[in-house]
Amino acid sequence: MLFNREELEIIKQEKEKWDREYERFPKRDVTFTTISGMEVPPLVTPADLEGFSYLSELGFPGSYPFTRGVYNTMYRGRLWTMRQFAGFGSPEDTNRRFKFLLEQGQTGLSTAFDMPTLMGYDCDHPKATGEVGKEGVSVSSLADMEVLFSGIKLDEVTTSMTINCTASIVFAMYLVVAEKQGVGWDRLDGTIQNDMLKEFIAQREWICPPRPSVKIVVDVIEFCTKYVPKWHPVSISGYHIREAGSTAIQELAFTIADGIGYVEECIERGLNVDDFAPQLSFFFNVHNDFFEEIAKFRAARRMWARIMKERFGARNPRSWMLKTHAQTAGCSLTAQQPLNNIVRVAIQALAAVLGGVQSLHTNSMDETLALPTEEAVKVALRTQQIIAEESGVVNSIDPLGGSYLLEFLTNKMEKEALEYIKKIDEIGGIIKAIELGFPQKEIADAAYRYQLELDRKERVVVGVNKYVSDKEIPIPTLKIDDSVCDRQKERLKEVRRMRNSSAVRRCLQAIATAARNGENLMPYIIEAVKEYATLGEISDVFREVYGVYRDPGYF
Amino acid sequence: MLFNREELEIIKQEKEKWDREYERFPKRDVTFTTISGMEVPPLVTPADLEGFSYLSELGFPGSYPFTRGVYNTMYRGRLWTMRQFAGFGSPEDTNRRFKFLLEQGQTGLSTAFDMPTLMGYDCDHPKATGEVGKEGVSVSSLADMEVLFSGIKLDEVTTSMTINCTASIVFAMYLVVAEKQGVGWDRLDGTIQNDMLKEFIAQREWICPPRPSVKIVVDVIEFCTKYVPKWHPVSISGYHIREAGSTAIQELAFTIADGIGYVEECIERGLNVDDFAPQLSFFFNVHNDFFEEIAKFRAARRMWARIMKERFGARNPRSWMLKTHAQTAGCSLTAQQPLNNIVRVAIQALAAVLGGVQSLHTNSMDETLALPTEEAVKVALRTQQIIAEESGVVNSIDPLGGSYLLEFLTNKMEKEALEYIKKIDEIGGIIKAIELGFPQKEIADAAYRYQLELDRKERVVVGVNKYVSDKEIPIPTLKIDDSVCDRQKERLKEVRRMRNSSAVRRCLQAIATAARNGENLMPYIIEAVKEYATLGEISDVFREVYGVYRDPGYF
Repeated sequence: MLFNREELEIIKQEKEKWDREYERFPKRDVTFTTISGMEVPPLVTPADLEGFSYLSELGFPGSYPFTRGVYNTMYRGRLWTMRQFAGFGSPEDTNRRFKFLLEQGQTGLSTAFDMPTLMGYDCDHPKATGEVGKEGVSVSSLADMEVLFSGIKLDEVTTSMTINCTASIVFAMYLVVAEKQGVGWDRLDGTIQNDMLKEFIAQREWICPPRPSVKIVVDVIEFCTKYVPKWHPVSISGYHIREAGSTAIQELAFTIADGIGYVEECIERGLNVDDFAPQLSFFFNVHNDFFEEIAKFRAARRMWARIMKERFGARNPRSWMLKTHAQTAGCSLTAQQPLNNIVRVAIQALAAVLGGVQSLHTNSMDETLALPTEEAVKVALRTQQIIAEESGVVNSIDPLGGSYLLEFLTNKMEKEALEYIKKIDEIGGIIKAIELGFPQKEIADAAYRYQLELDRKERVVVGVNKYVSDKEIPIPTLKIDDSVCDRQKERLKEVRRMRNSSAVRRCLQAIATAARNGENLMPYIIEAVKEYATLGEISDVFREVYGVYRDPGYF
Repeated sequence: MLFNREELEIIKQEKEKWDREYERFPKRDVTFTTISGMEVPPLVTPADLEGFSYLSELGFPGSYPFTRGVYNTMYRGRLWTMRQFAGFGSPEDTNRRFKFLLEQGQTGLSTAFDMPTLMGYDCDHPKATGEVGKEGVSVSSLADMEVLFSGIKLDEVTTSMTINCTASIVFAMYLVVAEKQGVGWDRLDGTIQNDMLKEFIAQREWICPPRPSVKIVVDVIEFCTKYVPKWHPVSISGYHIREAGSTAIQELAFTIADGIGYVEECIERGLNVDDFAPQLSFFFNVHNDFFEEIAKFRAARRMWARIMKERFGARNPRSWMLKTHAQTAGCSLTAQQPLNNIVRVAIQALAAVLGGVQSLHTNSMDETLALPTEEAVKVALRTQQIIAEESGVVNSIDPLGGSYLLEFLTNKMEKEALEYIKKIDEIGGIIKAIELGFPQKEIADAAYRYQLELDRKERVVVGVNKYVSDKEIPIPTLKIDDSVCDRQKERLKEVRRMRNSSAVRRCLQAIATAARNGENLMPYIIEAVKEYATLGEISDVFREVYGVYRDPGYF
């Protein structure tokens, strides 16, 4: 493939001629933008990519700037991890679902916790009422965690845990479970979400204010660099930013900005960038717009590589690599005509794979109605297996590399995301920007614009504002057993009765002291957890020492 | 985008370095070929496309060689026609399904006929026993056709009819229905499959031997150039070639070879190539291998354009344009875990759209079990609507153009298909090749190789030879009312009673005489149909004059 200057000149002239023809013909009366509102050209040719350099913009898979993939062999070496997010009811219920998924060929675990666990309340706390086991598994103490992973050897699976303001506590419990199984921490592989910045930007689940919250995140990162070297101590998450209504470019920009924020905080802590950066991982959404999503993953890798190398001076190539989990967009699914969601998820999953992700959750068709049934989650997993083993898209690495449209979109998204990052730098960094409500406001504006487009039917959601059915055939949904809460409370009561109360008090006191002294909390939390101090009790120490953050209510 | 010779040299050297690295790393123990057995390189770069010329190989949408699409505006101007193949039971049943599909937003009709209709037997013929209305709608006379399209204005829909050895008869009935509706033939838009060559290659539904069969095809083409100018008198079909187990390259090669065969026969008849070629249309399969399928559509357009321009000297650009319908691969669907078929169909449909098709049928998830239910066909149609209105892939024309992999595959498929065409030319043309069993044998060999791969589990079919479920949840299926046959026979009896028998006899005699004289049969068939001569009676004239073809039994 070689375009000399003369051919490029002719292509340019012909393109201009084509453009004039194009103008003459009638078009459909719809908007030709991505779902994020990004303009898409009707046709992209080499003339639209002048100055494009293969070597500096794409390079080779496994090499800087990693646009074509973080690994040399990509899916020829190893498929992405198929990781279905699962958790409901009691630890026993979720343990059974985990085993079902592993039997069905899933290759990694992913744990959903219930609202009280996520927010730092034990199952017997008044604020937990009606929420125990409802949207995830209920975990109040090490005793629950032991049941959750019973019969699953922690050195034989990779586990992801979606938890943030109480991530340090749940991670400590996981480490203790491993220890009790005789599994060395150096053999643990997995990810804890532990991304508080995106909580303040989008998901809004927090205990303490931004700065101490980030301090605890950095504690986990620092601890892992020393003791849990294969673990990803943070999953820098664009997923929730997108679910909150951001555009794809905002998702890309704010996620990378959060990454920059953690790197800065770790360096501030005195860590060497090449000691922690290889353990950072990412988590992106995969929404409907097929090419925008593929371009997003490619742009994210190139941006992160350049930032780590040029801005932070990282020298280890593993520090430059953006490894990412992805999940299909929950917000894109519809309660109406739920089988249509199988179609959406298939297209989104294909985009993630063509984008070169390392791990993928495919949503179940019934997730807008309830937690997924076994049958629904099986179809979601089969979707990944069909892409991996029937569609042939794993045979060639970065199969869309070179596509004029894709390279155009990848460049454009990188450029626009970098503009956001520049703005955040000018504000004084992402924490400051969050305190001022900047990303929050940008997202709210985008969400509002999108809602208007839907209301005006300028944007179609099949089955919702077009192709609506009058008769809907209901699908079976999962019911959570109401006795879960009682059984969980029973176990917690037993834990409180059996444990050494004075040891627990001593451990909690030690966490408080360490927090006041600015020490790394992880060793103290691990000790407390071993004594069966509860998630709620440790969270109370956070509340007491750091204070409780109140919604600044920008909107 | 500009690669000068120096950059290309560096890319080549770097690619070699990358190749050596790639060799060092472990790979998964699977085959990295397409489902057709075509080798796919692990990575394609500009170094692998040396000599590629944008202008001669791609050009612009709406311009020769049409690789990027037949129309200038493609889906920005008009979406593909969403055309679900439908037909079962009585004409009343199918008429109701047609109306259901139009209400659901389908944009074109597509008619499935039952086996007796396809093979030229009336519903009361002994050979029709047990088959009436079972796999399509039963049509024995104009009376059935009038019911089938009742309440549907034929100048407001485009209709496709999948019928071959009796195509001339059913098409004649359609023309008469139009006439009775007061719709001029010049306003009829649609397609009749009428492709006998692929019957002898793959689908094996015939009455007469190849040469008279093709003669009748050419009669329909000639008739349409004169009287039905917007109609596609033949749909040159690779679909069934692929379903019979061919590779993608065989599908491409034999379909284009069949096209060449028809063009040669029409020229032999004395027609001017630019008078009939713009009305030819094509019909391809869309199988599982995503990129192989997209490349196939792009290669097909470029091949046809070059053949029509260079081989046949066509001068009208419309003669160069390969316009095609596509259908997702029925043979790729599984009876096991039928919801998985929604995933397969979504990926296949996306490939068809990225390949730039003009019309698309998406298979229903239950088609391996029975004829589709309304619910299943609705999901299949929604699949197209989600691709069209949610995925954003229609915004930019030929979005994969320039992808190193896609251009590599497109070139490779064109090259290998041209080798087949050269061989067929050497044999003496496609009819001769069919008479010698050449394409049949090539397909049988490919089908055998594929079956071996499945048996050895070298190739995975999810839910069939891997990820098998022990408990399957049955889905509802469509039952065909057994009274259909009696009601059809009743109507036929009434037709025979009411019609002018001597007029019918005279019309049938006229067809026989015209056939013996080598005249175009269409005007005679139209006259016979108007007098309610039946499909079986007219087919009997074919049998009598041309003889019945017996399977030569090559295999």
